[in-house]
Amino acid sequence: MNTIPNTMLPRWNDQGLIPVITQDATSGDVLMLAWMNEEAMALTFAEGRAVYWSRSRAELWRKGDTSGHVQELVDARLDCDGDTLLLKVNQHGAACHTGRPNCFFYFRSEGQWLAEEGDHS
Amino acid sequence: MNTIPNTMLPRWNDQGLIPVITQDATSGDVLMLAWMNEEAMALTFAEGRAVYWSRSRAELWRKGDTSGHVQELVDARLDCDGDTLLLKVNQHGAACHTGRPNCFFYFRSEGQWLAEEGDHS
Repeated sequence: MNTIPNTMLPRWNDQGLIPVITQDATSGDVLMLAWMNEEAMALTFAEGRAVYWSRSRAELWRKGDTSGHVQELVDARLDCDGDTLLLKVNQHGAACHTGRPNCFFYFRSEGQWLAEEGDHS
Repeated sequence: MNTIPNTMLPRWNDQGLIPVITQDATSGDVLMLAWMNEEAMALTFAEGRAVYWSRSRAELWRKGDTSGHVQELVDARLDCDGDTLLLKVNQHGAACHTGRPNCFFYFRSEGQWLAEEGDHS
């Protein structure tokens, strides 16, 4: 048996970020992967909703502030070496900016990645 | 409605890697997050089992070659901007090197991350 530390700390990468897997608490669907810095993680717990760090905009990203597609925090887990966070959330509306329920809609077919038909609007 | 490209390509980061979320195809549990380079991804599809890139060892990591805890590939999805891969797998044995069924066993309690009781052995 491996010895498992009783406590863990988030391990930030060299940009001060940690990857965050966001999962629908009800369906179990994986919704998206995003990133947090220390401030975003603190705000997520303080506000009970997902707050990320947008790498493209280099700013805090309160998921849903523009779209209304807020992610209410249900549970949070850190992994065995502290370098990934798993959030379980109640997703309001679509998780993906494309209007799809989650971001993982490209499937592999004959070596290509093709968009599946969606009922997004 | 946002315009969604019909096809997508994996978008490798500046280390030539892409994060991979691995999910149990049956239970929906998120098992782990790991990384692939282009060769690891090609081998995953060629062999029908998860092959990662170990960042700590800087080598290909055929999940299960040492432990027997192979991950049979069931489905693979790329996300809306091509920078995350989601694998659904049939997990043989424990996904986590600690012997736990998945890597996400630290829960938050009063600002600390504590290991949950496990039935690992």
